[in-house]
Amino acid sequence: MGRETYQVPVNDVFVANRKKLRDKMRAANVQEGIIYLKGGPSETRFDSDHEPIFRQESYFWYLSGVKEPDCSMSIDIRTGETTLYIPKYPPSYATIMGRIRNPQEWQSLYCVDHVKYAEDVEDDLFRACSQQPTSNVNAHGPETPKIFLMNGLNSDSGKMYQPPVDIIDSEKLKDLLDTKTLFPILAECRVVKSSTERSLIQHVTEVTSFAHAYVMRNMQPGMMEYQAESLFRHYCYYNYGCRLVGYTPICGCGPNSAVLHYGHAGEPNARQSLDGDICLFDMGAEYFGYGSDVTCSFPVNGKFSIKQRQIYEAVLQAQIEVYRMIKPGVSWVACHKTAEKTIIQALANIGLIKLHDKSLDELVEIRLGAVFMPHGLGHLIGIDTHDVGGYLPGKQMRIQLPGLKSLRTARYLEEGMTLTVEPGCYFIDHLLDEALADGSPLKGYLDSNKIDEYRGFGGIRLEDVICVSDCGCVNYTLCPRTIAEVEHVCAGKPWPPTIDEAPELLRTRLTDTTPLL
Amino acid sequence: MGRETYQVPVNDVFVANRKKLRDKMRAANVQEGIIYLKGGPSETRFDSDHEPIFRQESYFWYLSGVKEPDCSMSIDIRTGETTLYIPKYPPSYATIMGRIRNPQEWQSLYCVDHVKYAEDVEDDLFRACSQQPTSNVNAHGPETPKIFLMNGLNSDSGKMYQPPVDIIDSEKLKDLLDTKTLFPILAECRVVKSSTERSLIQHVTEVTSFAHAYVMRNMQPGMMEYQAESLFRHYCYYNYGCRLVGYTPICGCGPNSAVLHYGHAGEPNARQSLDGDICLFDMGAEYFGYGSDVTCSFPVNGKFSIKQRQIYEAVLQAQIEVYRMIKPGVSWVACHKTAEKTIIQALANIGLIKLHDKSLDELVEIRLGAVFMPHGLGHLIGIDTHDVGGYLPGKQMRIQLPGLKSLRTARYLEEGMTLTVEPGCYFIDHLLDEALADGSPLKGYLDSNKIDEYRGFGGIRLEDVICVSDCGCVNYTLCPRTIAEVEHVCAGKPWPPTIDEAPELLRTRLTDTTPLL
Repeated sequence: MGRETYQVPVNDVFVANRKKLRDKMRAANVQEGIIYLKGGPSETRFDSDHEPIFRQESYFWYLSGVKEPDCSMSIDIRTGETTLYIPKYPPSYATIMGRIRNPQEWQSLYCVDHVKYAEDVEDDLFRACSQQPTSNVNAHGPETPKIFLMNGLNSDSGKMYQPPVDIIDSEKLKDLLDTKTLFPILAECRVVKSSTERSLIQHVTEVTSFAHAYVMRNMQPGMMEYQAESLFRHYCYYNYGCRLVGYTPICGCGPNSAVLHYGHAGEPNARQSLDGDICLFDMGAEYFGYGSDVTCSFPVNGKFSIKQRQIYEAVLQAQIEVYRMIKPGVSWVACHKTAEKTIIQALANIGLIKLHDKSLDELVEIRLGAVFMPHGLGHLIGIDTHDVGGYLPGKQMRIQLPGLKSLRTARYLEEGMTLTVEPGCYFIDHLLDEALADGSPLKGYLDSNKIDEYRGFGGIRLEDVICVSDCGCVNYTLCPRTIAEVEHVCAGKPWPPTIDEAPELLRTRLTDTTPLL
Repeated sequence: MGRETYQVPVNDVFVANRKKLRDKMRAANVQEGIIYLKGGPSETRFDSDHEPIFRQESYFWYLSGVKEPDCSMSIDIRTGETTLYIPKYPPSYATIMGRIRNPQEWQSLYCVDHVKYAEDVEDDLFRACSQQPTSNVNAHGPETPKIFLMNGLNSDSGKMYQPPVDIIDSEKLKDLLDTKTLFPILAECRVVKSSTERSLIQHVTEVTSFAHAYVMRNMQPGMMEYQAESLFRHYCYYNYGCRLVGYTPICGCGPNSAVLHYGHAGEPNARQSLDGDICLFDMGAEYFGYGSDVTCSFPVNGKFSIKQRQIYEAVLQAQIEVYRMIKPGVSWVACHKTAEKTIIQALANIGLIKLHDKSLDELVEIRLGAVFMPHGLGHLIGIDTHDVGGYLPGKQMRIQLPGLKSLRTARYLEEGMTLTVEPGCYFIDHLLDEALADGSPLKGYLDSNKIDEYRGFGGIRLEDVICVSDCGCVNYTLCPRTIAEVEHVCAGKPWPPTIDEAPELLRTRLTDTTPLL
């Protein structure tokens, strides 16, 4: 995005991603055929001509880096040759949308082997399959290579990725289609990030971190929640060319800090903050199709109250305990339970939880932690905020228990995975009431009177983006995190610091001021 | 949106809009039956769980002001009673999205008579129609009142507003549906704005104007185009609670200023500005569902070059000539031609156009103006940037000639219409080449050598939002417009001014510093 913004080596990202996919297909014993993906279409809002800013479909972005709508791409598994199919624009397009690029320009811009017009795609795919030499022979003779299409469930949305209708409905292609093989392989490709992808995610997380510090420094009691959102967006876009955010900023103050996805159209960050409020701001920039997802919680007046400090320290300690255990091979479910256990311990220390006869581990197992943290510890992150591959065939399945059922993955950690670590502790009336109701197995372990003192407090969440490295965890997030750091930044002091006062947070680049690229 | 932001009297907007629709239905001799409209659904991006910020469908907004997705509304034409149908949320919704409002709260929030759950809508509509007393009798006996659904063409997008599938496909309701009557009447309702709507559009246009002045003051050579977009968005959101913009900001510098809808995902305002560039910034805020649409053009270095001044003054003069003629009863096509004529005259003075034997009017008629202004003079504006009703059955039809075919309406002006007035003059290579080609009827009237001197210049557009008043025109736009004003603001001087140096621009509130409401 020009000037001093982060320069992405296009070749290193998308050509490498395509190579990885092709290698994995071949490793799955698919030596020939064509991979075909369609990018997102241009769309307008309802019946009007209002065009929201187009953002490419994520799988297509992963393989192509094409920012324009109405394109598609094929990859020849045998040769690796890539063809980009582009729309044919009328000359009047140039007046309205800008100079029409010729095919050679598309080719060099997106590092593909061939560029053709979208209108020819059906014939072209047919020809490519029919003419491809094949090594597969079945009872009826040589088998024509297949066209591999995406088709599968997104485990975060519950929605299906549907194969493109024009291809599925094609009479000509109907015997050539395979809609089973590609999806799990391509989803799995996206789970472990390449080093270029990791650098991108690290960069956008650093931008996000400094934007959070900027908001923290500028927030004052009496300001509207949306002013924080505006400061964040402006900081990321104006300074670092991040036009989009990864998700709608969640800027809850006071009681709204306990609403996990506050900030949507029905609750549009429109409350005025009051002295004494906790601010829970969950905001992440997006750059070059890769996003971040970071949450800071801080007192709007810049000084933690005793209660705020107690809950904040519980959540921060949960992050630290999780960082201690993260390394390849560790179960994400175990990490989640460690966070819960840390928070239960802290709440017991304050007197909100009564241990009685139970150990901390036993309280974790009866799902007491889910009363205070009714969401998963974190999720894979990349091109999507909730990145794909959390639950795939042959991997760990979802656990159907309170709290754990909200985990967006139950996998074992692998080197190169990027995840959020976001423990939280909230006081949500209807969850507390449920747990305190007669007959609830949790009732005996909660001090109802003490809990009443914390109702209306809201919640605290601390969310970092980390990468699993060969021997542990690299924390990409460079936010103020300790009580002292937060109060320091709220008081208008500079950030980042010159000395890292909490090395246990593993913020590797905290005091390193050189740009990433 | 709290603090000092504009307070909208909900009752005055939507209850009044509903009353207007009902009155117009009755005036069209529809005395009974039910009007039914469905709001926009909640949606996620492709297969992911990414939720863009929901923005209500515009017709539904016009009648309801409901900011949440998944609602619908019925209006009883006989009694005027309004029913809002809301989704039923599971208790877990509260944890994620916020406290679940009860029906009584919805009722008072949106000033409706009844609130019911969306799942009951089919039965409810059936009952409402069957039980309604009817005065219509046909050959077979009394006629059951109808359910009136929206169904019709949006003349800006070319897309159809489709009636809701669940109602259209309902076996129970199939004999009760009328999909012809409602659309033209409701579209026509939106054409002439109520006084509350006008105040809203005036307010958001004033915010937009001051945001433009802010961007103008902060723009310097070397800055990226998107930094202007970021400044604009931040100014409007941070200071005035405008979370959304009416359309993707168009921030073209240098040659990009000649690309009419620059700024989209394929050309994302990502060029660095250079000393000597003209900036053409077309940006409008949205507040409470109503938008503005304003364009300023200014030299990035703050001082007009001779060429920039020549073209700028031509376009500004075109605005002034149009303002002189705007009043109820005047044809919008005539306004467009006046703008073209003014620009042709100016270009003739500079030497780009040769009059020869022709009068200015004759040059307008051979469509010479469309070479330099290949878009319409302006459009209706309101809830949509290109607001509906430009072409409706029984009104003036679209003229299929260069330039004129781009007009988004050919209607006669009426008191209370809000429109943009946006003459422009651009140097677009492929249009110039076409006009200068052998055999072109325009060739003889253009000085090819002189035109070559202006190639690469880009373009100038000046766009205001105005309202047709009983005796003329009220300009809601309070931007720096004269050369002196623009250079003054570019130099960092204050805006708005204390003295109006160009009263012919009809900026009624330019020196009035009291807030609108």
